[in-house]
Amino acid sequence: MILKKISCYILLVILVSRVSAQSVNPVQVSIGKVKLDFVLDANGTPAYAVQYNQQQVITPSRLGFSLTDDSTFYKGFELLHTSRRAVNESWQPVWGEVNTIRNQYEELTVVLRQRKAPNRLLNIVFRVFEEGVGFRYEFPLQPNLKYFIVADELTQFNLTGDHKTFWIPGDYDTNEYLYTTSPLSTIDNTSIVKSSTDIAVRTAPDRYAVQTPLMMKSKEGLYINIHEAALINYPAMQLHVDRARFSLSSSLVPDATGNKAYLHAPGNTPWRTIIVSDKAADVLASKMILNLNEPTTLTNTSWIKPMKFVGVWWEMQTAKATWNYSNFPDSTDANGKLIPNGTHGANTANVKKYIDFAAANGIGGVLVEGWNTGWEDWFGNWKENVFSFTTPYPDFDVREITRYAASKGVTMIMHNETSGSATDYERQLDTAYRFMSLMGYTSVKTGYVGKIIPRGEHHDGQWMVNHYDRVARKAAEHQVAIDVHEPMRPTGQHRTWPNWMASEAGRGNEYNAFSIGSPPEHETILPFTRLMGGPMDYTPGIFKMKGYTGYAPERQMHTTLAKQLALYVTMYSPLQMAADLPENYAAKPDAFQFIRDVPVDWDDTKIIEAEPGDYISIARKEKGKPNWFIGTITDENNRTAVLPLSFLDKGQQYVAVIYGDAPGADWKSNPEAYRIETFLVDSNNTLRLKLAAGGGAAVQVKPASPTDLKQFKKYTSK
Amino acid sequence: MILKKISCYILLVILVSRVSAQSVNPVQVSIGKVKLDFVLDANGTPAYAVQYNQQQVITPSRLGFSLTDDSTFYKGFELLHTSRRAVNESWQPVWGEVNTIRNQYEELTVVLRQRKAPNRLLNIVFRVFEEGVGFRYEFPLQPNLKYFIVADELTQFNLTGDHKTFWIPGDYDTNEYLYTTSPLSTIDNTSIVKSSTDIAVRTAPDRYAVQTPLMMKSKEGLYINIHEAALINYPAMQLHVDRARFSLSSSLVPDATGNKAYLHAPGNTPWRTIIVSDKAADVLASKMILNLNEPTTLTNTSWIKPMKFVGVWWEMQTAKATWNYSNFPDSTDANGKLIPNGTHGANTANVKKYIDFAAANGIGGVLVEGWNTGWEDWFGNWKENVFSFTTPYPDFDVREITRYAASKGVTMIMHNETSGSATDYERQLDTAYRFMSLMGYTSVKTGYVGKIIPRGEHHDGQWMVNHYDRVARKAAEHQVAIDVHEPMRPTGQHRTWPNWMASEAGRGNEYNAFSIGSPPEHETILPFTRLMGGPMDYTPGIFKMKGYTGYAPERQMHTTLAKQLALYVTMYSPLQMAADLPENYAAKPDAFQFIRDVPVDWDDTKIIEAEPGDYISIARKEKGKPNWFIGTITDENNRTAVLPLSFLDKGQQYVAVIYGDAPGADWKSNPEAYRIETFLVDSNNTLRLKLAAGGGAAVQVKPASPTDLKQFKKYTSK
Repeated sequence: MILKKISCYILLVILVSRVSAQSVNPVQVSIGKVKLDFVLDANGTPAYAVQYNQQQVITPSRLGFSLTDDSTFYKGFELLHTSRRAVNESWQPVWGEVNTIRNQYEELTVVLRQRKAPNRLLNIVFRVFEEGVGFRYEFPLQPNLKYFIVADELTQFNLTGDHKTFWIPGDYDTNEYLYTTSPLSTIDNTSIVKSSTDIAVRTAPDRYAVQTPLMMKSKEGLYINIHEAALINYPAMQLHVDRARFSLSSSLVPDATGNKAYLHAPGNTPWRTIIVSDKAADVLASKMILNLNEPTTLTNTSWIKPMKFVGVWWEMQTAKATWNYSNFPDSTDANGKLIPNGTHGANTANVKKYIDFAAANGIGGVLVEGWNTGWEDWFGNWKENVFSFTTPYPDFDVREITRYAASKGVTMIMHNETSGSATDYERQLDTAYRFMSLMGYTSVKTGYVGKIIPRGEHHDGQWMVNHYDRVARKAAEHQVAIDVHEPMRPTGQHRTWPNWMASEAGRGNEYNAFSIGSPPEHETILPFTRLMGGPMDYTPGIFKMKGYTGYAPERQMHTTLAKQLALYVTMYSPLQMAADLPENYAAKPDAFQFIRDVPVDWDDTKIIEAEPGDYISIARKEKGKPNWFIGTITDENNRTAVLPLSFLDKGQQYVAVIYGDAPGADWKSNPEAYRIETFLVDSNNTLRLKLAAGGGAAVQVKPASPTDLKQFKKYTSK
Repeated sequence: MILKKISCYILLVILVSRVSAQSVNPVQVSIGKVKLDFVLDANGTPAYAVQYNQQQVITPSRLGFSLTDDSTFYKGFELLHTSRRAVNESWQPVWGEVNTIRNQYEELTVVLRQRKAPNRLLNIVFRVFEEGVGFRYEFPLQPNLKYFIVADELTQFNLTGDHKTFWIPGDYDTNEYLYTTSPLSTIDNTSIVKSSTDIAVRTAPDRYAVQTPLMMKSKEGLYINIHEAALINYPAMQLHVDRARFSLSSSLVPDATGNKAYLHAPGNTPWRTIIVSDKAADVLASKMILNLNEPTTLTNTSWIKPMKFVGVWWEMQTAKATWNYSNFPDSTDANGKLIPNGTHGANTANVKKYIDFAAANGIGGVLVEGWNTGWEDWFGNWKENVFSFTTPYPDFDVREITRYAASKGVTMIMHNETSGSATDYERQLDTAYRFMSLMGYTSVKTGYVGKIIPRGEHHDGQWMVNHYDRVARKAAEHQVAIDVHEPMRPTGQHRTWPNWMASEAGRGNEYNAFSIGSPPEHETILPFTRLMGGPMDYTPGIFKMKGYTGYAPERQMHTTLAKQLALYVTMYSPLQMAADLPENYAAKPDAFQFIRDVPVDWDDTKIIEAEPGDYISIARKEKGKPNWFIGTITDENNRTAVLPLSFLDKGQQYVAVIYGDAPGADWKSNPEAYRIETFLVDSNNTLRLKLAAGGGAAVQVKPASPTDLKQFKKYTSK
């Protein structure tokens, strides 16, 4: 997202006070219900605390570092001075859930100096928002701190009780886990790591570590979310849980040598974020993480276009086709050419089928996986030179496909799976993106399935964080949008790089194809966790709910079909896949109409109701249009979603098309039972929608035409 | 070097015998005085032994591996069959010490299979030459060994006694050490590593490890040299010394995770080489390592041109000028531009001075270090993004310099110091080499001063070995020759990549500038060790022997001036620097005449006499000319070199210009005392040259003209 226009008025720069350490302890900043306290304790260790509505959220918690050349860079500080300012501005993202984002905060900067020689300086900057606090460390230009290495970041988040927590294991290489809901005191990831599907690299050495965004709920009903913003040139932060003290501490992903971060002063860390509210909906509505990222420097963003897409993909996930063209790299014929296996999905004729389908249904893009050489032995070998990103398989006629797609008004989406060999991808980056430009590809799905090369580095370490950043920059140079699979989880960096449109970095819908899948509650947790940092390419829209995997016929989706539709609203992404096979959509054209209609870019968003792990109901207004779309989902329990339509324009009559669970629908026994009903509604209505166990509903609401007014009945809740 | 013409006759493929393990034990192969025995012991462990002239050189020594998925890949083998062939061919290198190289060997391949499931296959291939044995492991295509990881290579070299050994510490990152001469039984590198100059990264975890090429001499007078050939896609081999058993074992440089090599079957290791003779001169004359490398696949090599060069370099080494343009990256002016420090060596005017000097003296190239941005904080920060390889400093007018050099017939030599950040160099590789092409640079000196990035990797590990190989390939694509500083030590790979013309990988002349220097024996050891694998960019030719380093006036060269001249013959390189400042050459034009005259490419080479650590005398015949050049050097002891000129054409009169130590010369007290004498000589003469302590002599021998015959006296030894 970028700052198209800024309406910015810096309210006040209150004071720059040079004072002794004693007289300023503690320093307070507050806005609305949120209050921050900063204190330097008797040892000269900086600490902070957070209150919400006069309830303690974070009790005094340590701040600081252990550096490789100074393990005490967290104590012996004196406070040189503090400065404050207030900001209230708004900005327009290139795409997003809303068309305007308010960025209002009170900022406190504390300037610290170590008393002992070499008297190093450390600044800590706090920004207090209505919905929480962000803070980061800044290393000012100074004579005795230039290049340095972070051995450990010592930031703590001391909590007030044994909160209910929605967590996945702290893993250096993946976020593709099922969520566990438990009190803090019982967190232990051992069995989860051990029992997880082997598709992702798993490196979770600390059994008490969890990933962020970490979602918690206190006994007093406070919703607390801890994450980070603007993760650049630094490793991802995990949280180590002290189960006895309810204390979380920063645990950075190490590099190959065990170091955490290589920094240079002047410089800074990412922001550590604490979002807090007594309403879960406020957590989902927060734009704090996005606000803590820098505005983009791209001046032309007109080439960045949200879109839906279909792809030659689910047929490989369900083993109907293969990525690879041959069955083994050594199975060559007498001329040294690969012997085709006859099951290769990315062949020209098959791709044209998808192009035809996309064109016929107003779907903007077609993704094709398995188009390029290297898939015969791509997986699990920790091999550096795997793929060519410019060489199609013999049966993928790249020029003809480009021509054909263009003739149909469809955009092809490039696929660059690296198998984790980031070094080799960087070597090919220039030619890969030149090739995309030449062939007219405007977006690329990248992938990092496998152990990282440089060997010893991790998906979430500083080196890879910088790699993803380099790829985003390179893509921007070529006006290509990216959808990154298997990266570190997002931290709002799409404000700075709006061409970084989506990421995976979580357990997507695909797990229902190649594993036991994810339980119905999964999609009610993801928006509170993984999606806090940015859009997820979750690949919703599966219509054939059972029996899609030939070799494992018992597998099924863990939602109803109506819930698959609702996900297009509840799981925000500007790149949204219609993941199922064309023939499965063709079999249910009435339900598919919702996917045809639902947009991927919005003027406004209302979180109507939400409870992590239980349900979410969201209404969104289509960008530049008066239409609203509502998604409501539940976990394994059926429920009635109560949805006041008060956000609609007063006095305007709308027609609402409700794609809901049919009576008798049930995610397990009867997932495909849906019912489509159309009613007239207005802002005084409250929809009451019965959701099946594992179910949901998707609603399209648009101004009623004269015909609609005659044709449809007024909605009355049943 | 490449195969220009092959005169190849494969003598015989004797047998492919399918036999039981018992009946073929042991298998023998011999040629001349060298005999190899292969045996499979009672545990099914392969072993070999080597004899020279019926003396045992290597007693039975284990072969095999520990793989990460099978620690026993060295035992339980059965011998499936053996095959033999004999080769006697010759080939012409693109450049080198001789114009034709004979490659004659008897080859034995043993095909082994593990008795236990999964019955993996391993081949060991031995090539027996007149001067030694090379062997390598081959992993044939097989169902149960595809991608695999070498945990350890278990190759042993069991020796027969406590040999006198010329060794440097086994270090993962550098070969820039002084040599120690000691019995095997007292090898311990601890104090040497500790006391070494800090300019190079030093990683020597095993106090009993040494680098190869390892030169030894037995009490019986056998000279034994152990190294490797064709190091590609594998880490460098060091040798761990079992001091009690006189046993050496392969110790591979690990990657960041501790693994040694990532391999794929079919594939192979480098060759392990054992050169042995009762004459030290034979070791220097051996082309076995080169022969064990693959012929080049380059079809056009006309662009690869040996040359001498001068450079803006020694003035930085001696602190007269700086590489950096500013004194710190933060010292910018109001416009954000770097503030010049006034001592930047690579400025246009200064470079033109070197171009003028080169043009006036028939020197082909001018190297300029410090021409590109990044030098302000390049060293010691383990920083990934340091240099731009396409951005000159403001005072280096790259286009004007290119124009000026071309107008003078001088070739500019590019400099790409990476500070060890190989990842960033790879990112810039395409643009860097395009830039060179655009600017007309036909060679580049690369450098890797600093800890390697990818962090945790080492200069001599598999990843970096592959990196140097990638750079050589990229350079070849752009018809650029490379001179690699701080790489792994060479292993004859210049046969395959003749554009890889030189490497540093050793303690060069430069150490006399920034450290205590190297003792007089140093150059008598290097040809037996570092140079066994390929040419060294030693940078000889210093004429100002004392007081060249302003801030350390006590420093001096550890040779006489005449010995500096002799090094152009004794230290072979097709890229040979005249390292001193133009003004120092201008002060001694008569001595400089030798550097003007000495070629860098040869038709023939005679090792006249040699003893490691004591003396070396070599005569070489200029490529395509009837002229000979002789270099003779000694260690800290004065001596008389006795040099029969029997290699000269019979009946031809020659004129010999002898650049020798003057009476009273001494490396320490009187290093610049040289004397130039000219005599008539023929093939019946024997030169007897008195070398000072730390001295040497350089002799040019060319057919005498009628004027010469009148002007000069016949040589008579004094």
